[in-house]
Amino acid sequence: MQHFSINNLGDPFIESNYGVHSRQFEVGVLDWFACLWELEKNEYWGYITNCGTEGNLHGILVGREVFPDGILYASKESHYSVFKAARMYRMGCVKVETLISGEIDCADFEKKLMQNKDKPAIINVNIGTTVKGAVDDLDLVIKTLEGCGFKDRFYIHCDGALFGLMMPFVKRAPKVSFKKPIGSVSVSGHKFVGCPMPCGVQITRLEHINALSSNVEYLASRDATIMGSRNGHAPIFLWYTLNRKGYCGFQKEVQKCLRNAHYLKDRLKEAGIGAMLNELSSTVVFERPKDEEFVRRWQLACEGNIAHVVVMPNVTIEKLDSFLSELVQMRSGWYGEEKGKPPCIAKDVGTDNCLCGSHDK
Amino acid sequence: MQHFSINNLGDPFIESNYGVHSRQFEVGVLDWFACLWELEKNEYWGYITNCGTEGNLHGILVGREVFPDGILYASKESHYSVFKAARMYRMGCVKVETLISGEIDCADFEKKLMQNKDKPAIINVNIGTTVKGAVDDLDLVIKTLEGCGFKDRFYIHCDGALFGLMMPFVKRAPKVSFKKPIGSVSVSGHKFVGCPMPCGVQITRLEHINALSSNVEYLASRDATIMGSRNGHAPIFLWYTLNRKGYCGFQKEVQKCLRNAHYLKDRLKEAGIGAMLNELSSTVVFERPKDEEFVRRWQLACEGNIAHVVVMPNVTIEKLDSFLSELVQMRSGWYGEEKGKPPCIAKDVGTDNCLCGSHDK
Repeated sequence: MQHFSINNLGDPFIESNYGVHSRQFEVGVLDWFACLWELEKNEYWGYITNCGTEGNLHGILVGREVFPDGILYASKESHYSVFKAARMYRMGCVKVETLISGEIDCADFEKKLMQNKDKPAIINVNIGTTVKGAVDDLDLVIKTLEGCGFKDRFYIHCDGALFGLMMPFVKRAPKVSFKKPIGSVSVSGHKFVGCPMPCGVQITRLEHINALSSNVEYLASRDATIMGSRNGHAPIFLWYTLNRKGYCGFQKEVQKCLRNAHYLKDRLKEAGIGAMLNELSSTVVFERPKDEEFVRRWQLACEGNIAHVVVMPNVTIEKLDSFLSELVQMRSGWYGEEKGKPPCIAKDVGTDNCLCGSHDK
Repeated sequence: MQHFSINNLGDPFIESNYGVHSRQFEVGVLDWFACLWELEKNEYWGYITNCGTEGNLHGILVGREVFPDGILYASKESHYSVFKAARMYRMGCVKVETLISGEIDCADFEKKLMQNKDKPAIINVNIGTTVKGAVDDLDLVIKTLEGCGFKDRFYIHCDGALFGLMMPFVKRAPKVSFKKPIGSVSVSGHKFVGCPMPCGVQITRLEHINALSSNVEYLASRDATIMGSRNGHAPIFLWYTLNRKGYCGFQKEVQKCLRNAHYLKDRLKEAGIGAMLNELSSTVVFERPKDEEFVRRWQLACEGNIAHVVVMPNVTIEKLDSFLSELVQMRSGWYGEEKGKPPCIAKDVGTDNCLCGSHDK
């Protein structure tokens, strides 16, 4: 397949004169996601992006076009591309505090909304933050907006980077759905689905894109995507994987990931290592290993005193066991009478999850 | 190779904790282009983009960050991504007229500069326009800017989509070089180099990126790219091709393309079909074939009354001959006493190149 130069140019729903494309696959994948997020076939627009960042750039741009004087609100644990978008697009941007879990703090959100009552709100809602895998409470965000008098004056973009695809398969998880007043959802395709090249899926309401396209500047291009040329291999890979695994296959994989993530968190805590796992997440946050070589070898992402592991379908119990036993063994050499205590991570994971000297009662 | 998920995250010159990347190849490719465009290794910054559009989005964004109140100037035959960028970035934008060749009309450019003397200028210079393959006269653009009193108050981005890579190999072609006061150059990697996935190369001055990065919002991410995740296969493919063909290999291919393009243009005109070929280009513009099925089968890009063929290294004389004989044969059935005359394309290609009834004297 890599012998063919496959290029999806511009809007997937508008024919192009370049013949070697994979638009049928692209539209097939988009249909699947529109259905997952409950938006009718004739009411959605979307495309397969080059990465999760492009999804955020697109969603926030659509929001700005719907509300040109809107202010962008995003929790401080949002992906950095959200803040980059605000600067690129010359939008006012307000950072909102987070709870210990990593979720947006809606009390702070309310306070900040009230300070900017005269301007519409564009909100980035995280369906799984980068570090803690925290899922913002979409329903509470909407309730807060409506309670503050923003009804019909807000646009919500859901950054579903990783969990946007997993959440629909988690029992009791609050639903990401276009039946709620949201404007767009994006997910990454190279994470949970395992596409070998970076890609993502972006779904939004057709009415927004139609409004954009009636605009002279956009009309000239008839191309509502951000990147003009798009990798044509990614849609074929995504389409194949979605069809091979099917809805049930994904459900099983998601359940396995969550089970294994719980296993990892429980075993870490049993070993006296502070750790946290959000209820709807497969991202285990724990005390940063002291040895940089260990961090590199296990490809751990670290920030301050914490590290995180995102438990994906390819991570087995055996692999977790070998990680755990190596960590426990090495860690016994890092701390001790003369070498000092492990770091306190209470401010990152809460006192209940911290097992440092002062919090492990 | 496609079994590996290769992802180049963020800035190619800053280490990332994701281990499966191809940054060494990426930096190797960037070094090659920086050398081609005469910018020292310690003075450039760049990255391999997902497509030509990303290069334009990046170059124009850097220009805006250097001159926040700058006005964007671009000829009306510039790629649509340039005008999309202006809208995305909320920049003032002035369209400049073009000559028959498709080059920017510097008399009109001067007039428009003088109307906005108080604001710095950000200019998109085309090194090969999409339709006519026209190369804007970079030296004249710079002279016009300096003559209008814009010295040290302008930023030039060169959109080298296709010819940015071919031009250095064309004898007597004006040089794209960072020894001139330009800010950035971008090219596509999936066109002339033939990379099987869309990609591009973006090179800019390190000083501009350093200025960006000292800014708080950008500092948080330390990522001066537009897309965060980038396809890691593309740099390996580009690196391999550059090294396999070498400078001499490219030179030969470019010469072959130009020769074949001349052959096509001459044969078209001999057959009484209006056609134009810019001196530095391998894009042949000609009368649009009347039959849509013919257009689709030969994958011709059309606009109004003209079509164009970009003669790439894989296009042989044999292929051109079979195209020509089919076109000539079919065309004899399209026009005639009762069926009317071929369209006049003088306004697109000039009276010298038009061979319609009124201009073929």
